[in-house]
Amino acid sequence: MFKELLALRDKIDEVDQSILSLIIKRLALVAEVGEVKSKYGIPIYDPQREADMLAKRRQEAKEQGISPVLMEDILRRLMRESYISENDKGFKKVYSGQGSIVIVGGNGQMGRLFARLFTLSGYQVKTLGSKTMHQAAEVVTDAAAVIMTVPINKTCEIIKQLPPLPKDCILTDLTSIKAKPLQEMLDKHQGPVVGLHPMFGPDVPNLAKQIIVYCQGRDPAKYQWLIEQMRIWGANLCAIDAKEHDKCMSFIQALRHFTSFSYGVNLQREQADLEKLIVLSSPIYRLELMMIGRLFAQDPELYADIIMASDDNIELIKRYYNCFGKMVEVIEERDKAKFVDNFNEVSKWFGNYAKHFIKESQALLKLANDNRE
Amino acid sequence: MFKELLALRDKIDEVDQSILSLIIKRLALVAEVGEVKSKYGIPIYDPQREADMLAKRRQEAKEQGISPVLMEDILRRLMRESYISENDKGFKKVYSGQGSIVIVGGNGQMGRLFARLFTLSGYQVKTLGSKTMHQAAEVVTDAAAVIMTVPINKTCEIIKQLPPLPKDCILTDLTSIKAKPLQEMLDKHQGPVVGLHPMFGPDVPNLAKQIIVYCQGRDPAKYQWLIEQMRIWGANLCAIDAKEHDKCMSFIQALRHFTSFSYGVNLQREQADLEKLIVLSSPIYRLELMMIGRLFAQDPELYADIIMASDDNIELIKRYYNCFGKMVEVIEERDKAKFVDNFNEVSKWFGNYAKHFIKESQALLKLANDNRE
Repeated sequence: MFKELLALRDKIDEVDQSILSLIIKRLALVAEVGEVKSKYGIPIYDPQREADMLAKRRQEAKEQGISPVLMEDILRRLMRESYISENDKGFKKVYSGQGSIVIVGGNGQMGRLFARLFTLSGYQVKTLGSKTMHQAAEVVTDAAAVIMTVPINKTCEIIKQLPPLPKDCILTDLTSIKAKPLQEMLDKHQGPVVGLHPMFGPDVPNLAKQIIVYCQGRDPAKYQWLIEQMRIWGANLCAIDAKEHDKCMSFIQALRHFTSFSYGVNLQREQADLEKLIVLSSPIYRLELMMIGRLFAQDPELYADIIMASDDNIELIKRYYNCFGKMVEVIEERDKAKFVDNFNEVSKWFGNYAKHFIKESQALLKLANDNRE
Repeated sequence: MFKELLALRDKIDEVDQSILSLIIKRLALVAEVGEVKSKYGIPIYDPQREADMLAKRRQEAKEQGISPVLMEDILRRLMRESYISENDKGFKKVYSGQGSIVIVGGNGQMGRLFARLFTLSGYQVKTLGSKTMHQAAEVVTDAAAVIMTVPINKTCEIIKQLPPLPKDCILTDLTSIKAKPLQEMLDKHQGPVVGLHPMFGPDVPNLAKQIIVYCQGRDPAKYQWLIEQMRIWGANLCAIDAKEHDKCMSFIQALRHFTSFSYGVNLQREQADLEKLIVLSSPIYRLELMMIGRLFAQDPELYADIIMASDDNIELIKRYYNCFGKMVEVIEERDKAKFVDNFNEVSKWFGNYAKHFIKESQALLKLANDNRE
């Protein structure tokens, strides 16, 4: 019995080794692509090429009788790695002038990420921190862009402290709220102004497909090069009105983080048996426990500031609290019909997204299960 | 410029095609493994073999200068597919007797999944539905096992309605609460009894690594073959006391589902701009929106029943509601210090899991991003 099995396993090991060498070959080719792209300033993320290529491979997989989804999953995983190695080759510098990039708060994680990307694109990057702010006036004299990336609750005050900037210098920020800082920057600087919000953490391997929101301030023509530069890094730039952005962020950040926070506080106060919960987890519950637990490995100050950043946030959270209370009444009264009515209303509101999310989450839940030991 | 790029892309396409043929070869070998395993009754999931193989491949990847994580991700994805094709080959039948498997509620999704697995393992499977219950007495005469998989709120009442079962027939259920149905089954039947709770949905591709909880009822020696049969399907069997199980499920199911439910109700009542929220989503928020949206593509009755299954569930939810209210007060008072204190207490409570969840969720968030169009 074991002979049969071991013989087959040896063959599988051989196949896996050949797969490994093909992966190495592919990454080498991709690195060459990266050089060509950086030479000609082509964005590292090319949606059309990616779609065409995946369609072809899916078709070939079908024809040869294997799951097209399997082939696509594996290629997408390879492409993620590819973006990293394309990254290493550096990027084309879009800005034709001589000025440097000044990052205020450049020692923070997000500041370091942007400093690295600008450096990889051939810019001279200078950083200002709390200890070096007194040299700001001299540091910004040749600035092509000044990027604010300081704690959300200090942003406006530090913008006020900025020295006068060169006439055509871009003033921008990476804060997760946009209306207030944008106004502050417009008051401070008469030149080009744009508000940015990177919708990702500083730990991303690269910017391929990552979303960066930008809010129009002043002189779009003069900050266009900065937008283009970020596109070349692979980012997906989305323009939106600052107030609308902030309204969405009350949901995406304040309400969501506060909910996870309270959920965690409750688990702890209930002294839930975490080990047992994890052992008994379905893939989906493990995922949800993960989303809550991960919050508490991060900086409490940051989350306090994001949640308390505006009265609108707190009002939204209070309305959620009330809505939650009404639903608690429904189940206290064991009012199944009313529960179902509410449920169906929400289903209608989610429309096709509900079904779509089921399908999309399948892939994630399967991965969560793959990675189980 | 395009010449250079196109030449490289052709080479990449060639490599991808060779990868495809290797994958086909691998799946064919795995199918043979499946035949050997089913012949000798070896479980399709072999943790040790999987760990050894991954360790070897990671090592080879390192030595050849590519990311061991990349190699592991790709192999895990291939292995998931492998479990499916091992599945197709059928499974060894552990039970040596002649009796059939009777699934009460066999037309439900979970019932159909188990019917398929028993059939693939060479058992004769009979099903009973609401329309055929009157034939129960005759259907169960030769039953080796009777499996209850009916809506949670009907389980106990339908157990009562069962006809007398053969002396050595196993009586078991797949309900997501265990204490009550287990007692009901013990009262009903004097032979072997065990309570089961599959911790996964009926849409899993196979049972590899999936958790099935079992709660001791009566005559373990006589229901052991059923446990072994599920192990051969690849499942991970966890024994737990019924009351402890139910306590955990109040957290894992009732509280969690109710929270997602209320969150969805609130989004709908706020008339949040779903399209915009999705466009602006960070990978992590998209994941969280997904986890909420997916609930509303499912059966409201089922979730109503799960949440209202016990007074303990409702008490737990009310305590969470109170805790949530206390945290709302903290942010209303803009009491950052208190927020941070609470946060840190929870971080301490999560211990190393918080950091671990960050790492684990990275893989998922990256996948969520890979799959973006």
